[in-house]
Amino acid sequence: MLGSTHGTLTTDSRRARVVACGEHPGPAVHGRPAEADDLDVSGRPLYADVPDLDRFFRPESVAVIGASDAEGRPNTGVTRQLVDWAERVGARLHPVHPTRGSVFGRPCSPSVADLPEQVDLAVLLVADPLPVIEQLAETKVRFAVVFASGFAETGEEGAAAQARLAAAVARSGIRLLGPNTNLNAFERFRDDLRGPSIALITQSGHQGRPVFALQELGIRLSHWAPTGNEADLETADFLSYFAERPEVGAIACYVEGLKDGRSFLLAADRAARRGVPVVAVKVGRTETGARTAASHTGKLTGADEVVDAAMRQYGVIRVDGLDELQDTAALLARARPPRADGVVVYSISGGTGAHAADLATAAGLTLPTLSADRQAELHQWIPAYLNVANPVDNGGHPVGDERGRKIIDAILDDPAVGVLICPITGPFPPLSDRLVQDLVDAAERTDKLVCVVWGSPVGTEPAYRDVLLGSSRVATFRTLANCVSAVRAHLAHHRFVSGYRSPFDEAPRVQSPSFRKAQLLMRPGQQLSEHAAKQLLRAYGIRVPREQLVTSAAASVRAAALVGYPVVMKASGGQIAHKTELGLVKVGLTSASQVRDAYRELTDIARYEGISLDGVLVCQMVERGVEMVVGVTHDDLFGPTVTAGLGGVLVEVLRDAAVRVPPFGEDQARDMLAELRGRALLDGVRGRPPADLDALVEVILRVQRMALELGDDLAELDINPLVVLPWGQGAVALDALAVCR
Amino acid sequence: MLGSTHGTLTTDSRRARVVACGEHPGPAVHGRPAEADDLDVSGRPLYADVPDLDRFFRPESVAVIGASDAEGRPNTGVTRQLVDWAERVGARLHPVHPTRGSVFGRPCSPSVADLPEQVDLAVLLVADPLPVIEQLAETKVRFAVVFASGFAETGEEGAAAQARLAAAVARSGIRLLGPNTNLNAFERFRDDLRGPSIALITQSGHQGRPVFALQELGIRLSHWAPTGNEADLETADFLSYFAERPEVGAIACYVEGLKDGRSFLLAADRAARRGVPVVAVKVGRTETGARTAASHTGKLTGADEVVDAAMRQYGVIRVDGLDELQDTAALLARARPPRADGVVVYSISGGTGAHAADLATAAGLTLPTLSADRQAELHQWIPAYLNVANPVDNGGHPVGDERGRKIIDAILDDPAVGVLICPITGPFPPLSDRLVQDLVDAAERTDKLVCVVWGSPVGTEPAYRDVLLGSSRVATFRTLANCVSAVRAHLAHHRFVSGYRSPFDEAPRVQSPSFRKAQLLMRPGQQLSEHAAKQLLRAYGIRVPREQLVTSAAASVRAAALVGYPVVMKASGGQIAHKTELGLVKVGLTSASQVRDAYRELTDIARYEGISLDGVLVCQMVERGVEMVVGVTHDDLFGPTVTAGLGGVLVEVLRDAAVRVPPFGEDQARDMLAELRGRALLDGVRGRPPADLDALVEVILRVQRMALELGDDLAELDINPLVVLPWGQGAVALDALAVCR
Repeated sequence: MLGSTHGTLTTDSRRARVVACGEHPGPAVHGRPAEADDLDVSGRPLYADVPDLDRFFRPESVAVIGASDAEGRPNTGVTRQLVDWAERVGARLHPVHPTRGSVFGRPCSPSVADLPEQVDLAVLLVADPLPVIEQLAETKVRFAVVFASGFAETGEEGAAAQARLAAAVARSGIRLLGPNTNLNAFERFRDDLRGPSIALITQSGHQGRPVFALQELGIRLSHWAPTGNEADLETADFLSYFAERPEVGAIACYVEGLKDGRSFLLAADRAARRGVPVVAVKVGRTETGARTAASHTGKLTGADEVVDAAMRQYGVIRVDGLDELQDTAALLARARPPRADGVVVYSISGGTGAHAADLATAAGLTLPTLSADRQAELHQWIPAYLNVANPVDNGGHPVGDERGRKIIDAILDDPAVGVLICPITGPFPPLSDRLVQDLVDAAERTDKLVCVVWGSPVGTEPAYRDVLLGSSRVATFRTLANCVSAVRAHLAHHRFVSGYRSPFDEAPRVQSPSFRKAQLLMRPGQQLSEHAAKQLLRAYGIRVPREQLVTSAAASVRAAALVGYPVVMKASGGQIAHKTELGLVKVGLTSASQVRDAYRELTDIARYEGISLDGVLVCQMVERGVEMVVGVTHDDLFGPTVTAGLGGVLVEVLRDAAVRVPPFGEDQARDMLAELRGRALLDGVRGRPPADLDALVEVILRVQRMALELGDDLAELDINPLVVLPWGQGAVALDALAVCR
Repeated sequence: MLGSTHGTLTTDSRRARVVACGEHPGPAVHGRPAEADDLDVSGRPLYADVPDLDRFFRPESVAVIGASDAEGRPNTGVTRQLVDWAERVGARLHPVHPTRGSVFGRPCSPSVADLPEQVDLAVLLVADPLPVIEQLAETKVRFAVVFASGFAETGEEGAAAQARLAAAVARSGIRLLGPNTNLNAFERFRDDLRGPSIALITQSGHQGRPVFALQELGIRLSHWAPTGNEADLETADFLSYFAERPEVGAIACYVEGLKDGRSFLLAADRAARRGVPVVAVKVGRTETGARTAASHTGKLTGADEVVDAAMRQYGVIRVDGLDELQDTAALLARARPPRADGVVVYSISGGTGAHAADLATAAGLTLPTLSADRQAELHQWIPAYLNVANPVDNGGHPVGDERGRKIIDAILDDPAVGVLICPITGPFPPLSDRLVQDLVDAAERTDKLVCVVWGSPVGTEPAYRDVLLGSSRVATFRTLANCVSAVRAHLAHHRFVSGYRSPFDEAPRVQSPSFRKAQLLMRPGQQLSEHAAKQLLRAYGIRVPREQLVTSAAASVRAAALVGYPVVMKASGGQIAHKTELGLVKVGLTSASQVRDAYRELTDIARYEGISLDGVLVCQMVERGVEMVVGVTHDDLFGPTVTAGLGGVLVEVLRDAAVRVPPFGEDQARDMLAELRGRALLDGVRGRPPADLDALVEVILRVQRMALELGDDLAELDINPLVVLPWGQGAVALDALAVCR
């Protein structure tokens, strides 16, 4: 591991510090300047306050600025919805309008200065919110919501207007939702539903609708935050707030872009620490999607593979479709922690069982073979010729009588079984009604997960609508694909959080001794020569071949003697790319005369090609190993990131590389290698010895340290190849490219 | 290309010959011995009759053997369903029972010999069908259905009973459905639905239920063939019959295993020729699935990658979930041929549009940017700040008035647009009701495809249930994922059939001149020496290095002079594997003395390792190129198959290889290469020249010829490596392994 870091806080001291926003208005609260202690060595925060949004979601008093009850005015419908909502949540509502005496029977204030009391929340229905925000700053209002559009989503001019609004908000101490948001936070939530809820965060009201509609299937929703343009409050703020709410079982997000990479990671970290699952659709799988999303809310989408990796680092479950978002969030909100990872497929048809077992296994679920004893027990009720090893096929008839329940109980009783999946491909009331009832009853009496896939396309059958959806213990799906992916996410989530250690607790806060050496080598705006790039690596303890930079043929011979034959010779200079293709590398030189000739040839080629050299490198020949590529690249959203891939043809042709966003620990560095498709090369193929994985992981972590300490000054760092020698022998950076900003 | 084949029939002469089964009972009809003309050179049929199943699905008279109307007897329910069905289809039903006088008011015959007329169809409700089949053989019945289970699905004993049944059926001339089938063919089909239908083939009744239930959504089903154990009639028979039916728009299949690979391909070929889409779930993605499916119906599942390739060769659309089977089959049955490949996403929300565009693009759909003129037209009705390039975001309001319909018409009017996808994430009647009606109306007046994704999880809204499902022109989905995969399948299907040429028309029927030479080299049960394996390749016109097999040091020096320096020397013998690892290969030998030393060293090593040699190969050194692996393997279901992959680390570590089932044409050989993940290597990377693709394709086709002519005698053939030289320079097989059966 890298040298110890100073000032690391213990996990305890990093617990959520809930700050009540708006209680003490002024920049000191939500713009609290970070203490040195709260920054990592890259200057990025290691901690973010959790905004206290209780009074946003449950205000005691609300002002509606621009309220209307006049027929045909657009604000009238909005005002009506706010009046209804205020009544439901028990808030006093104060309409504000310069000329109206009353709105929906409530006395109207001519301006915010005339409000009868200090309000928790001001909802702005005006086209130009800036002057109102400035007036509101005087009133000590805690929260404001701005519906007006025409800001960053419309282009440069709008972005400038949004920046002015954001600045006014920051000065005021108000926390703002919007602009370009909507009424979703003030929807009519069902209050008759019990159990852990889903909290929803969306950057598009329409895209949240399907999750909100889960209430019609009996699944509880507690909050909906439509974040709009995020001039102030952003996805991350709601994420960390929801993660602290006791009633929230899972957080569902629809994300088009993020305002800030680090604040998202800090919020996801908070959810991971608290074990609250976060399920997210993130637009941007393709360039088309990224471009369209950016034009929709004017936020950065980031490189998709980086967003994907960042989400996985913090256990955020990324899904593609809104149906998957519904099904996965609903399961994770309500299911208890799994008792075991084993999944049993149970069905009334061998075909259904075979098909479901096939797709479940393909999705990565584990279907343990039931023990001989368990199978014997099941065969008391199921004919001997049917398969009960898992999948369990009962042939149909046993579900029609008391055997049905006994079979389910016996399966759930097995300690290897954590999940039972029962696909019912169509309603056949004589069998399926009783089967469904037995499953619902059994689910009430077990702490294991019972899932049903209801295959009928219609979905109006009483067994489905009344019995299955009426149960809070059975997880009901309409497609097998969504069932198995939700179950996989559920099992993976609990594995993840049980082993979770926050990388922010261990992130370096002060510069390493390497940093000073490295700084001297940096040349702003320039590409470093190979020699200088390798010195940079050496400063961070990454092994490079013995080598000398020489500027004469005679010196090259002396250097070769020092380095030791055989040697490699390479032209070195700040502008060189494609050395091999240009003939600027000579390998396997075994004598002084070969070295002398090589020196002349390399300098001749450079002269011919018009390349200026800082000299010629005479390098130790390194024995063969597995060639890797390890480097640092810069992501718009997350800043410097670390990549590692298999070298040669695999990285060139297949782009077989993994990426991580710092800070990350050794476990993630190992995970990067596990992700590589060509991973087997590191384990040794065709009788080759296994490579020194520990040394490789160490290099990845040292490169991460470089990314953290130098990242913002380093446009690009590429070790290519890093030769990983057989186990116990280390790894050597044979060549490196470094470009300074 | 390979030499011309003799006796190729023209496409016309290969048209469907519908044979009316049962009209002339006896083995000559459905067991018609194939003429020499109808076999390819491997002895596999190039042609299969289409069974005439009209009277199976629409019999004039039916006998029910074992009929019952006694309370509480299992056969009573079955008999009742058959009586109802016979009434609906207008068939005369004759119960048969040894003791009952009448069943459900119909006079009962004591035995099949006493039936009042010759029946089209006999349904056997008896536990032991064999004696009844033998009696039926006398009665000239055309079709029989056997429900009894306990045959091949139960193990060896059952398989033997099934074989006896199959033999009796073959003798009788009756076409049999079953055993172990069910009542699905005799379901109550809705007869009020119009338009092209789905015909359904399933190897499990439960698994067909969701597709059958599509009728509840207004989608027409015309047939359901539950094939059971396929002792006689198999999936392929129904596939080719349905492909000939004018009312069938698409065939949906649930397949666990296939009775015979070739007959499936011939049936799929017939569907491809007629342009009828076939959508199939095939269990066996995983070993678990394959094993479970095999134990369910006792059929072969085949290696999954081979089944997958075979399906793609004939344009069969493979899907995973039953919901995907429903949605894809429904779309392909009803949609007209696409006018263009371009897809436009249209929505009332920028977020929904961005998300849908992202997933559609990720799925491989093409979203053309609409022309500036078209965008200007759309901006007449849509505010200027909204994106109408594609996705088209209308911001919501225009759908509430007459602008909505104009926007849809303008999009559909664009010649680049073939498909409009409108995701509606939730019902909001003031907007969505009119939007849905406009889409339905527009779809009535265009021949382009209009798709709606109805995002509400409930699905009880009138806009969905009445308006959308009431339209036969709008394709309605519940998930975006299923929508985009069905649209992709629809576009791909029409591209496929428009360019389809049946490989059976061009398959070789007679042995090539190579075959006689090759036969002399085969050694049954043995692995050939490298030298012999290369002679086999040479017999089929595949280039191998110049080489000589020698058995003395002196001869090796003479051979090297003939072959030309530098040379490679290799031990050659029938049992050698891992030559390189054992040190049995010497490369880059440039002199007589090196050759002499190498000869001694190779023979010493072989002696030390106890390997018997047939000599030492002295081979020409071949310059470097792209290393490939091309070979023949044997699949349980399809027989010999041809594989091609990138050599070295790509095939070893990533198994980057493609497979095809012969016969296939040059287009498929090229497709194999396009499938390879490392394909870019063939195009030339890092300044390397592009490889000689034509020569590589030629080798693949020659290896196919070997597979066809020698395949059943060749357990394995592996050319590894095949070095593909730069364009125009050919390809050379450097080493080969051949194992005879």
